[in-house]
Amino acid sequence: MSKPAFVERVEMTGHIVDSLLLPKVLDAILSLGGRYHVEELRLGEKQDDPTYVRIEVRAETAEALDGILGEIHAHGAVTTQAADCSFLIADVDGAFPDGFYCSTNFRTQVRLAGEWVDVEDQEMDCGIALDPEGHAARCLPMTSVRIGDRVVVGRAGLRVFPPESEIRKHDLFEFMASPVSSERPKAVSVREVASAMRRTKAAGEKILAVLGPAVVHTGGSEFVAKLVRTGYLNVLFAGNALATHDIEQAFYGTSLGVSLEHGLPTAEGHEHHLRTINSIRRLGSIRAAVESGRLTSGIMFECVKRDVPFVLCGSIRDDGPLPDVITDALVAQAEMRKHIPGTGFCLMVATTLHSIAVGNLLPGSIRVACVDINPATVTKLMDRGSTQTVGIVSDAEPFLRALVAELERI
Amino acid sequence: MSKPAFVERVEMTGHIVDSLLLPKVLDAILSLGGRYHVEELRLGEKQDDPTYVRIEVRAETAEALDGILGEIHAHGAVTTQAADCSFLIADVDGAFPDGFYCSTNFRTQVRLAGEWVDVEDQEMDCGIALDPEGHAARCLPMTSVRIGDRVVVGRAGLRVFPPESEIRKHDLFEFMASPVSSERPKAVSVREVASAMRRTKAAGEKILAVLGPAVVHTGGSEFVAKLVRTGYLNVLFAGNALATHDIEQAFYGTSLGVSLEHGLPTAEGHEHHLRTINSIRRLGSIRAAVESGRLTSGIMFECVKRDVPFVLCGSIRDDGPLPDVITDALVAQAEMRKHIPGTGFCLMVATTLHSIAVGNLLPGSIRVACVDINPATVTKLMDRGSTQTVGIVSDAEPFLRALVAELERI
Amino acid sequence: MSKPAFVERVEMTGHIVDSLLLPKVLDAILSLGGRYHVEELRLGEKQDDPTYVRIEVRAETAEALDGILGEIHAHGAVTTQAADCSFLIADVDGAFPDGFYCSTNFRTQVRLAGEWVDVEDQEMDCGIALDPEGHAARCLPMTSVRIGDRVVVGRAGLRVFPPESEIRKHDLFEFMASPVSSERPKAVSVREVASAMRRTKAAGEKILAVLGPAVVHTGGSEFVAKLVRTGYLNVLFAGNALATHDIEQAFYGTSLGVSLEHGLPTAEGHEHHLRTINSIRRLGSIRAAVESGRLTSGIMFECVKRDVPFVLCGSIRDDGPLPDVITDALVAQAEMRKHIPGTGFCLMVATTLHSIAVGNLLPGSIRVACVDINPATVTKLMDRGSTQTVGIVSDAEPFLRALVAELERI
Amino acid sequence: MSKPAFVERVEMTGHIVDSLLLPKVLDAILSLGGRYHVEELRLGEKQDDPTYVRIEVRAETAEALDGILGEIHAHGAVTTQAADCSFLIADVDGAFPDGFYCSTNFRTQVRLAGEWVDVEDQEMDCGIALDPEGHAARCLPMTSVRIGDRVVVGRAGLRVFPPESEIRKHDLFEFMASPVSSERPKAVSVREVASAMRRTKAAGEKILAVLGPAVVHTGGSEFVAKLVRTGYLNVLFAGNALATHDIEQAFYGTSLGVSLEHGLPTAEGHEHHLRTINSIRRLGSIRAAVESGRLTSGIMFECVKRDVPFVLCGSIRDDGPLPDVITDALVAQAEMRKHIPGTGFCLMVATTLHSIAVGNLLPGSIRVACVDINPATVTKLMDRGSTQTVGIVSDAEPFLRALVAELERI
Repeated sequence: MSKPAFVERVEMTGHIVDSLLLPKVLDAILSLGGRYHVEELRLGEKQDDPTYVRIEVRAETAEALDGILGEIHAHGAVTTQAADCSFLIADVDGAFPDGFYCSTNFRTQVRLAGEWVDVEDQEMDCGIALDPEGHAARCLPMTSVRIGDRVVVGRAGLRVFPPESEIRKHDLFEFMASPVSSERPKAVSVREVASAMRRTKAAGEKILAVLGPAVVHTGGSEFVAKLVRTGYLNVLFAGNALATHDIEQAFYGTSLGVSLEHGLPTAEGHEHHLRTINSIRRLGSIRAAVESGRLTSGIMFECVKRDVPFVLCGSIRDDGPLPDVITDALVAQAEMRKHIPGTGFCLMVATTLHSIAVGNLLPGSIRVACVDINPATVTKLMDRGSTQTVGIVSDAEPFLRALVAELERI
Repeated sequence: MSKPAFVERVEMTGHIVDSLLLPKVLDAILSLGGRYHVEELRLGEKQDDPTYVRIEVRAETAEALDGILGEIHAHGAVTTQAADCSFLIADVDGAFPDGFYCSTNFRTQVRLAGEWVDVEDQEMDCGIALDPEGHAARCLPMTSVRIGDRVVVGRAGLRVFPPESEIRKHDLFEFMASPVSSERPKAVSVREVASAMRRTKAAGEKILAVLGPAVVHTGGSEFVAKLVRTGYLNVLFAGNALATHDIEQAFYGTSLGVSLEHGLPTAEGHEHHLRTINSIRRLGSIRAAVESGRLTSGIMFECVKRDVPFVLCGSIRDDGPLPDVITDALVAQAEMRKHIPGTGFCLMVATTLHSIAVGNLLPGSIRVACVDINPATVTKLMDRGSTQTVGIVSDAEPFLRALVAELERI
Repeated sequence: MSKPAFVERVEMTGHIVDSLLLPKVLDAILSLGGRYHVEELRLGEKQDDPTYVRIEVRAETAEALDGILGEIHAHGAVTTQAADCSFLIADVDGAFPDGFYCSTNFRTQVRLAGEWVDVEDQEMDCGIALDPEGHAARCLPMTSVRIGDRVVVGRAGLRVFPPESEIRKHDLFEFMASPVSSERPKAVSVREVASAMRRTKAAGEKILAVLGPAVVHTGGSEFVAKLVRTGYLNVLFAGNALATHDIEQAFYGTSLGVSLEHGLPTAEGHEHHLRTINSIRRLGSIRAAVESGRLTSGIMFECVKRDVPFVLCGSIRDDGPLPDVITDALVAQAEMRKHIPGTGFCLMVATTLHSIAVGNLLPGSIRVACVDINPATVTKLMDRGSTQTVGIVSDAEPFLRALVAELERI
Repeated sequence: MSKPAFVERVEMTGHIVDSLLLPKVLDAILSLGGRYHVEELRLGEKQDDPTYVRIEVRAETAEALDGILGEIHAHGAVTTQAADCSFLIADVDGAFPDGFYCSTNFRTQVRLAGEWVDVEDQEMDCGIALDPEGHAARCLPMTSVRIGDRVVVGRAGLRVFPPESEIRKHDLFEFMASPVSSERPKAVSVREVASAMRRTKAAGEKILAVLGPAVVHTGGSEFVAKLVRTGYLNVLFAGNALATHDIEQAFYGTSLGVSLEHGLPTAEGHEHHLRTINSIRRLGSIRAAVESGRLTSGIMFECVKRDVPFVLCGSIRDDGPLPDVITDALVAQAEMRKHIPGTGFCLMVATTLHSIAVGNLLPGSIRVACVDINPATVTKLMDRGSTQTVGIVSDAEPFLRALVAELERI
């Protein structure tokens, strides 16, 4: 094998050994066909000290080198050559210039006039736009690009701070992060989620819930309603189904026609679903149904009563839908984004579509607990880079019942 | 128990014993607290003869009786009192009058001026609207209601023709209809689907495919492309992900960054997804990408080349999306409805969201094969009243590979 | 098609229309290529009256006719020609004579000297042996055959009483019997199981539990221990894993090394499993461990203390195993059979292997609730002819926690 | 926090950074409440050079320190104090002395008279026995212990060589090792397994297949039979079900009564299963059935014809079983162990029970491909320490069909 001729020097600082960041970088270099030479390594002698490493990276072609540098950049490896970040002026509405920098959900900085500046509204799979004065930067979704925007290109002058997630295992969140299994002690999971919710509330941050229809089908509505009443649920993201089933329960005592009292299908029960939607459409909105005295219990009722904001996002499988449902996906995403600042904890229960959609929007710093009876849902969310997520494979109603009981203890 | 005092007489005709319709009706009466008295039963002596039954139904309250009649109506039991159907004038845009009749996906007739008339555009969970002259009727989605529409209410003057699905088992479709299992002979499933597709093509009807992203991830694009080229795929419904992964494969040889040649992640491969969408957005549309020579292979390329129409429906979990994606769910549903007339067979592969959405739109007369590696997806679709569906628990690429090979024999 | 020339007359009595038995029989005749002619049908006018039907069955070959008669026999259709049952003398140990009658798990009668006699020890997939005097009959497993046994052959002189399962829906058991889904109201399932357990106890019948290791992993041991203490668990079938994890929890506070208090892996915890088994092997038995004061809590401790019998069945994936484990499958089956008489209810939680094994042994008259977080396990059990089974898709610990709470109310 | 007072020095050598072994060790120390001080680190400058590290480990109690040392020992960290290993004389048949060393499936050495000696018959969850002369050591299952055996205790004088699995990614095996997903390019998986089988055959090593009943149900028997005929399957481990279904197919053309030609249930087909077992029992053995000309096709036929040894292991859910089935789990494990030496590759298809059982027996050096349509099976196997395993989520018949086609190319 000829000696690779294209060379670049990168450096990393932090708990890069025990957080697995350095091994990941070395591994990526080899996997992508490169070679490395560790020029300097100053290991933190004790586990509190940061480690510094400088590595020479070699590849056989300029393209291969560039591919490697791009890959390891997301793990926090930055070239030693200091430079400001580059940008191009957007020439098309709704699309970035070619070569745009593609964001992660980790804290990121750009170098502007020699200063490292935090990127605002951190979100994965966006571009980064600079303000006209070049003093600030923020993540920008592709569809929000307007001609004239200054869009960051390349990796120069950018640095990423991936979480040193493996280093300090204070609680279950770190431990439960990787393998997804239903065979875990469930009381512990409940206790840890309750404790995270208490901490979030005490810190004055918001708790966001993302809920799927099985919450209602399994009989969990009353427990969610209680979370709203007791201030443990401050923003709700859901779809047409969750809201309709919840209101159907309030109107008819059924969910998709199945009695929640007896577990049995009721006469013409399958029509309750459609008649519920039709009734709310006739009234104009969920709020109107509450204010007119027609809707008097359930999750949506409590949200209206306590002024807990909710975003109901539409999908092509919706019946109706309810008048409050935002049927356009881009509008719905934009509406959800508005509620993310100030959020400290996110509880996702029994929904794949909405969990992944919300996972895409959240910055890596917000803790997430994803509860689903299907391990595949939990795995899917965690595969998408949401390392901040705890997966709990369990049943919706029993989980919510136990969670409320735990929150009520002291 | 006091003798139920509210009474109504219903009748049924057809292969109602061996199709299980009569037992279902008797069962529903008992389950809902009613009592029955079989007044007349003329059993078809041989299996080709229809059976006639007249049943007296009793319940303790008028409401209970009404509930029972509503429930058994969907199984084809019609009251013996002949009457025209009733309607109310819609008083609100986008909602039915209270008491609206809720449609099934089975063939339905309304009685207008003493004549039984077929309802057009049969679709489940809609209302039925009469034309101004009262000569015709068609299914109407809730959101399409406009003030002044004549909307059918109640069940009088309506009859439903549920499929006598159990009676004649000519092929695998009937046999495979109920229990969903991965443990079936797979070569037979492939052969039966191929044969249904050949019959559909020979009959001059359209084959509709509903495809999820795993079709591309597992390496199945080339087989779908071949179905398009050979005229076995005439309409495509999919989402942003399927189309993007397919185009990413054409541009980069990867799907979500994983090489389809080597099965390995490639350098910066995770960005290919977003860069692919951005490129198409810059070009304006998938068709523009084909016509400009930028896109030269894959499923979407073949669809453009062969003028096979496609509907790409958006969802809140989409990145981008591609410019061809319809981001509003109601617009997307309307667009899909346009392509259903003339369809004879529907092949769904590896998608839950789209399969259920399309299952909601299809009349009960269109045969469907739903292929998914997850039994839950198949079960979910079949639970929603899609009795015309064959569920095949199998892997996307190997299924498509075998299907194409089978279609090429002879 | 030439007119089928091979003819036989069969009759059926009971709630054969609304229990779906008659439709099943007609369907089977057609599916297997036969033709039928309903010669007489006396429908029960009201739902309490039994129905009688006599059907002429035709097929094109003697073999086809025989196949049809065999198939419909299991649905209760008996030929009109009265005859005593036939038998052959077993000529080999451990195998039946060719042509042996293959049992179902439904109540069955044989005709001996003109009298219909109930078959004892009803169990599916066995033969039927007559006593030497020809006065009695019982199900006999294949491996228990000894040379000289009188083994029933053919179907003449045999009648089966399949459950008229669809006819009377008093409780959830009938309703929940068919479709398996996690999306059911869970509080109702818990209430119904508790109520079945109370009725069983009140009737002086035994409650049998079949438990898998996830009961311990999820933290459910204490609830099972409570069921034993309160007399709601009278026989336990399990494997090496359940017992070992339970004892590991008593010894180390862990289950496969994971702390049940903190949910975290403990130092060298993975060795606890093997060290637990080794300790019990050194002591000689679980009972010895209790009596020596070494084992002082948990499921197995309570079973020993309350003299609740347990059968631990071995498998090839076992470590150790514990000295109480029966490593030979045939010996284990025989041991389980001993405990079935007198059983009125069976609760299966979180085990596929043991659930199916026990399902094979139980007569169709014993009610079963099968709880598993994986729908496939529940479906598999119900597919094997266990129509008496309620499937509950839920999580082990939360289910057991709620069940104990429900049993403690009043 | 007071300074931990219990101290020990450990060292590691090898590709310990990029194989993640060093980070795992540091992580384990922290997780278990200890502290570390890196006293010396000589990093391999280039990726081919080994790294050396010496770490001081501290804990607050002697027990905690011992727990940490035990945990990190399995990752290859050895105390710097050289000593021979210790042993105790077994005082009970079938159980180890307390304090026995618990084996991994990784290559292990013991220090005997100052020399490091390889442990033979490496297998996880065993003890290690020394020969009477103290010159050799081998893994010993718990039940095989006999009074007087010299059983290794503690960790002194033992070292483990965990695989440096992450370091060199030559083929798919390394890449596919961790996340289990059905959404992978399937043609690549097939190609890689075929290539591993070709290499194994070329190296003169054996290919072991572990097969579940779905292989037959899905129609895959003919492809397995072909693997036997072409020398690509040299040992078969399976259960009663696989063998019975295969022979049922040969006798009746059905598998559990379902026709493999038409996919439909046949008349009295459910009895075929039991009649097949009974027939073989009457003949005495599978070999007798082949030699008498009764069994003329299928997997078992080919195995007998080609003298490919098979081990059929019993379970409590077995019907019959076939006379060749080993009903005692310990005897079956012992029989399987005999066939492992000389094995170079193991293909597991569609079986959880047998896959895990065999996974327990295999040394870490044998490559395994585990194919199952259920991701949970694959995950379960890989969770049990089988890092040498590639998980492929796919359907049995299509996978085997493609594998045979791939092996036939060239």
